[in-house]
Amino acid sequence: MTTVADILTFLETLAPKSMKMDWDNVGMLCGSKSTPVTKILVALDPFEGVCREAADIGAQLIITHHPLIFQAPKAITDETSIGRSIMFLCSHGISAINAHTNLDQAPGGVNDVLAATLGLENVEIINPVNGCGLLRKGEVAEQDLTSFLTTVKEKLHCEGLRYVDGGKPVHKVAVGGGSCAGGMLEACDAGCDTFVTADIKYNQFWDAKDLGLNLIDAGHFHTENPVVAVLAEKIAAKFPGIEVKISETHHDCMKFY
Amino acid sequence: MTTVADILTFLETLAPKSMKMDWDNVGMLCGSKSTPVTKILVALDPFEGVCREAADIGAQLIITHHPLIFQAPKAITDETSIGRSIMFLCSHGISAINAHTNLDQAPGGVNDVLAATLGLENVEIINPVNGCGLLRKGEVAEQDLTSFLTTVKEKLHCEGLRYVDGGKPVHKVAVGGGSCAGGMLEACDAGCDTFVTADIKYNQFWDAKDLGLNLIDAGHFHTENPVVAVLAEKIAAKFPGIEVKISETHHDCMKFY
Amino acid sequence: MTTVADILTFLETLAPKSMKMDWDNVGMLCGSKSTPVTKILVALDPFEGVCREAADIGAQLIITHHPLIFQAPKAITDETSIGRSIMFLCSHGISAINAHTNLDQAPGGVNDVLAATLGLENVEIINPVNGCGLLRKGEVAEQDLTSFLTTVKEKLHCEGLRYVDGGKPVHKVAVGGGSCAGGMLEACDAGCDTFVTADIKYNQFWDAKDLGLNLIDAGHFHTENPVVAVLAEKIAAKFPGIEVKISETHHDCMKFY
Amino acid sequence: MTTVADILTFLETLAPKSMKMDWDNVGMLCGSKSTPVTKILVALDPFEGVCREAADIGAQLIITHHPLIFQAPKAITDETSIGRSIMFLCSHGISAINAHTNLDQAPGGVNDVLAATLGLENVEIINPVNGCGLLRKGEVAEQDLTSFLTTVKEKLHCEGLRYVDGGKPVHKVAVGGGSCAGGMLEACDAGCDTFVTADIKYNQFWDAKDLGLNLIDAGHFHTENPVVAVLAEKIAAKFPGIEVKISETHHDCMKFY
Amino acid sequence: MTTVADILTFLETLAPKSMKMDWDNVGMLCGSKSTPVTKILVALDPFEGVCREAADIGAQLIITHHPLIFQAPKAITDETSIGRSIMFLCSHGISAINAHTNLDQAPGGVNDVLAATLGLENVEIINPVNGCGLLRKGEVAEQDLTSFLTTVKEKLHCEGLRYVDGGKPVHKVAVGGGSCAGGMLEACDAGCDTFVTADIKYNQFWDAKDLGLNLIDAGHFHTENPVVAVLAEKIAAKFPGIEVKISETHHDCMKFY
Amino acid sequence: MTTVADILTFLETLAPKSMKMDWDNVGMLCGSKSTPVTKILVALDPFEGVCREAADIGAQLIITHHPLIFQAPKAITDETSIGRSIMFLCSHGISAINAHTNLDQAPGGVNDVLAATLGLENVEIINPVNGCGLLRKGEVAEQDLTSFLTTVKEKLHCEGLRYVDGGKPVHKVAVGGGSCAGGMLEACDAGCDTFVTADIKYNQFWDAKDLGLNLIDAGHFHTENPVVAVLAEKIAAKFPGIEVKISETHHDCMKFY
Repeated sequence: MTTVADILTFLETLAPKSMKMDWDNVGMLCGSKSTPVTKILVALDPFEGVCREAADIGAQLIITHHPLIFQAPKAITDETSIGRSIMFLCSHGISAINAHTNLDQAPGGVNDVLAATLGLENVEIINPVNGCGLLRKGEVAEQDLTSFLTTVKEKLHCEGLRYVDGGKPVHKVAVGGGSCAGGMLEACDAGCDTFVTADIKYNQFWDAKDLGLNLIDAGHFHTENPVVAVLAEKIAAKFPGIEVKISETHHDCMKFY
Repeated sequence: MTTVADILTFLETLAPKSMKMDWDNVGMLCGSKSTPVTKILVALDPFEGVCREAADIGAQLIITHHPLIFQAPKAITDETSIGRSIMFLCSHGISAINAHTNLDQAPGGVNDVLAATLGLENVEIINPVNGCGLLRKGEVAEQDLTSFLTTVKEKLHCEGLRYVDGGKPVHKVAVGGGSCAGGMLEACDAGCDTFVTADIKYNQFWDAKDLGLNLIDAGHFHTENPVVAVLAEKIAAKFPGIEVKISETHHDCMKFY
Repeated sequence: MTTVADILTFLETLAPKSMKMDWDNVGMLCGSKSTPVTKILVALDPFEGVCREAADIGAQLIITHHPLIFQAPKAITDETSIGRSIMFLCSHGISAINAHTNLDQAPGGVNDVLAATLGLENVEIINPVNGCGLLRKGEVAEQDLTSFLTTVKEKLHCEGLRYVDGGKPVHKVAVGGGSCAGGMLEACDAGCDTFVTADIKYNQFWDAKDLGLNLIDAGHFHTENPVVAVLAEKIAAKFPGIEVKISETHHDCMKFY
Repeated sequence: MTTVADILTFLETLAPKSMKMDWDNVGMLCGSKSTPVTKILVALDPFEGVCREAADIGAQLIITHHPLIFQAPKAITDETSIGRSIMFLCSHGISAINAHTNLDQAPGGVNDVLAATLGLENVEIINPVNGCGLLRKGEVAEQDLTSFLTTVKEKLHCEGLRYVDGGKPVHKVAVGGGSCAGGMLEACDAGCDTFVTADIKYNQFWDAKDLGLNLIDAGHFHTENPVVAVLAEKIAAKFPGIEVKISETHHDCMKFY
Repeated sequence: MTTVADILTFLETLAPKSMKMDWDNVGMLCGSKSTPVTKILVALDPFEGVCREAADIGAQLIITHHPLIFQAPKAITDETSIGRSIMFLCSHGISAINAHTNLDQAPGGVNDVLAATLGLENVEIINPVNGCGLLRKGEVAEQDLTSFLTTVKEKLHCEGLRYVDGGKPVHKVAVGGGSCAGGMLEACDAGCDTFVTADIKYNQFWDAKDLGLNLIDAGHFHTENPVVAVLAEKIAAKFPGIEVKISETHHDCMKFY
Repeated sequence: MTTVADILTFLETLAPKSMKMDWDNVGMLCGSKSTPVTKILVALDPFEGVCREAADIGAQLIITHHPLIFQAPKAITDETSIGRSIMFLCSHGISAINAHTNLDQAPGGVNDVLAATLGLENVEIINPVNGCGLLRKGEVAEQDLTSFLTTVKEKLHCEGLRYVDGGKPVHKVAVGGGSCAGGMLEACDAGCDTFVTADIKYNQFWDAKDLGLNLIDAGHFHTENPVVAVLAEKIAAKFPGIEVKISETHHDCMKFY
């Protein structure tokens, strides 16, 4: 019988813990390794809606990108979102595991999937250390910025984009799913003219303009969510006896107007 | 219908949060304030055995002195004692609240109960700040140390005591339930010849000998547990419709040989 | 003859230094207090374009909201944006002064102007300390969220908005120009159903949804820029002999798609 | 003529300074390396009684396990125990040297002597780093806990023991003289069922119970003092012309009741 | 019989401990308060030469400005200067007390004596806090710098001076015995044209030149030593039965060439 | 056409940035690498007088030992010396570069030039790490201290010296230009009897006396300034088309009396 421990062992091969950032929290964050597993729900976040969906479909395990516990809680009560999630999981015998910055960095992880989704070619890691790194760069056929914005919006299913025009056509593109605008200089130094990431702040847009870099905020959810389907697929392939579902209820809560 | 919130409000009157130490964690540590309560289990610690006892007797709430969560956990799994307690409480719908250093300091709390149990008279707070403080001092009829050791052992139901003889008869006695040996100098400066506390280390016994202070380790459990019955009694008196039980299974795990 | 020192003294009456945050840098950041002033340029930021515009119109002083120097520079060279701005100002004899978080907090400053621009009524400071505070709250006629989004977009001249729907109609609105999403809980505790600010991150949108708060990102530039015209007007009124111009070239560099 | 320097050089071969913990203070802590030595007093602690005994027997040197100076003193006066010891030594021309955590770790040091005293066989270092480590593990014939407690009490001349029953017979035993309860997990991971150390606190007894480990507090003095005789013997053998005495007055000041 | 404690009590009236800097170490630094005192040696520093001189004249106590212990020692051996001093004092039964930054600040202390020695009039504390402060300012008849340099050299018995010419005549003079160059701006803001202190570094001379301040380095020893005679006198007057001597051997070790 | 960048590249070969201390600030500190250079002013410090001299002679670049910016400035105004220097340089189009602790350490840098100026032979780096280090040691014919003091004063053009007599003749001499007295123990351990440096404080002179080391303060300016001519010469030799001048106005501002 397959258990949570087996899934965790396989996840470690896809995104080893040694690849995570120091401050991150990944792996077995709730439940029991010995729980037998027949159904799994995969989603970007372990929010309450996802926990309920797992219970509704009869899953014993949720696998997410973002960790269930980030700031370690001093209390587990129904007054906080994290407390409600933990109470719900415990009372329904559902375990929760995740791969976060290790999945960002891993080959075939968040950023490789994002690069592939955007159709980049000749994809490489930017500034790899021991073959490992966060950002990816690749190429698209040279085109004007508007043309590339159309591609990004369509491929990532974004409702809207925010961007600054660096004054160059798009050819060499860096990508970093989630909040990676801090890597802007690295992207420039790697020869990129364009950088797709999320959660970009006012001064960062201006920094990009100063650098002559096209900087595109495609949304935290939309730049990371593509990995969910890939992750689900790999787990399903490895464990044919287990039903692996992608969350149908979890979407970005933020809208454009 | 009485809820956890009502009990918590009453507990705040007995041991206000403002009296706790900065590093401490007290109050509502697991569950939901809106849970209706008909049965409560009171104990010194919220360990797994106590959680199970609560479930066995059908309690919806446990009230303890020590906090369920001290070091905030990065994961809630069955691989740690705290993880198992939280998972058990959540899956059984039992809430957990506590009063720790606020109960140590509160009038009628841990240290006043300890002083009373030992039969001290003219009890005062040592070094009160705004009328509030940790240690208590009081008087017994002057007696030799052996006589007082007999009293301590009997009144606190200790299997054994550890002590250093400071070379003086016992008359003015300081008490601090749990690990309070760091307050030794305060006890001396307050004119005490004898100090009853717990968890005393090698160098602290020697420090006491240097100071000419009779220092008695009566055990962490035995110096704090007397407050449990008093606490249970006060809650029962306030909420006559609720059954308040004192843990029958929780005892000190440490033995003498 | 009016000098930079005179303008600075007046600016202190509008936004006293004592109102600034500890980490902030405000006041006389470049040039000389003794410089005679006949023309002033007012803008949100002291970026290079603004510095050039000042020289083009013959201004001896620029007044901005954001500070010329935030991270103190280890070198003043043309390889950084701040270095280029300082070199340009020094070589053109232009001084630079600013009011940042002190202007955010000041009565009639950034946040009062933002509240007025959005048409809020019965405006109050949220959690004032000694009558001073960052966020403002006020009321609009109860309306659905879409209606309010239309107002925000129109009044602040936004190209687009990002928001999360908290599930409530809009009536009590909190505002905080620039990056104030960290004040979300304060806005809720003050009884607001809606909060307008900028630079909002993924997890903050989710936190708002958890709280049932309508959270609107109207852009850092668009929520703070309204104060520029008000500031220019006040200075012009005080110094009739000086020509005070609002920057015509400085706009938000970020666009929506 | 043998000097303090010669003894110190030999002590370094028994317990090299490189083996000490970072926070520790060992070696030449009082006096002069050039002092000629004909008589040495060896004891666990350099307390005042030991200093006086050294003077009484005409020793020029005391060698101890615990350091004379731990917290560096801001004053050397007769108002503190350490001040009195230093004043006494200086005025009697007695030097003081010691080996503390280096002697804990050294082969043939505190923990090897403790293991031997308890009759452990097949003794190994637990988690050695470069062949060096603190705790030792070894085997006794499998026996029930009571039987082993009797052995410990007798061999270490303890007046009493404190312990928790881990629920297993005793076969593989870890030892750590003094305050080593923090190494409990290491002892478990090394396959031990029983751990003998000292200065154990309330929560540590409970942690042991959770781990299923028999944890025995045999006293700080009694777990470390056996090394004194061995150390005296080695020095006497190396320096046949010097009279090496073991303190006759220094005992544990703590008693059981 | 007068004891060290009596002298210490009187010293506290001259230079209360509450006036010392946080980082400083003053008061009873070696020996015993109960030692009877018939002869005292007073000196600026408690160096070995001074300790020997005390023994030679039969003093039971040395009183100094600089503390015997500044960096708390991890060992008391003859390999360090401080170790040799402590060993010598302890073996000769000599106690050591001192008043350092409290004597700098005290009325009639180091800086008042320095001001008086230089003939300043209308002496005031610079920037007093609760009537207490480090630097003093006073007036001399306006004169050129060379004239004042002659006075300083002669009155303080300096072999040489180092100074920077601030370009102004000397009239309002600040003084700070020892290393007080960090107070240069305070001296300027207090309206002084000249500042006498010691241990001045390269960049501080340039800072003074920038400020237009005459800055004079008259030597650490020579700016502080005048207080020694005054202190000796006060103690002798208070304790007529005690012989109070000023060190005859202690001089500045630094020379000019 | 030679630019600032070319000079900077050559300076890097003389004193690589990798040789600087962590806390130091060196290289391109003001202006633009692309500025064409026909005239350079070299000086120890980039003070205002030096900046004005550069403008007077028509230099486009100043090269100094000490950095223009040490403490990064929060404002560039005419109220501070550094602000005035930067404003002057920017308004006159003059760039500023420097080599500080990297030039101290570099072969042929500050300390090698100082050793050569004093006529030391068999010069070696003290405690080199990877062939690099701060202090130098060398030999002079054995002589009494007075004789060596005469040499130092004459060769370094000092108006005066401050020194302590360590009680030994001079033969093995350590040198460290500027504030290197903290390296006193290193100099002793390297077998030197004499150490020439600057900015020496009271307690450091006493430490030297305790160590039996002749310690000579020859002034910060005079121990470092010799490198200026050597640096100017090397740059002139490398760039024959550029006029390289040594500052004629910059001297030590400190005088002896």
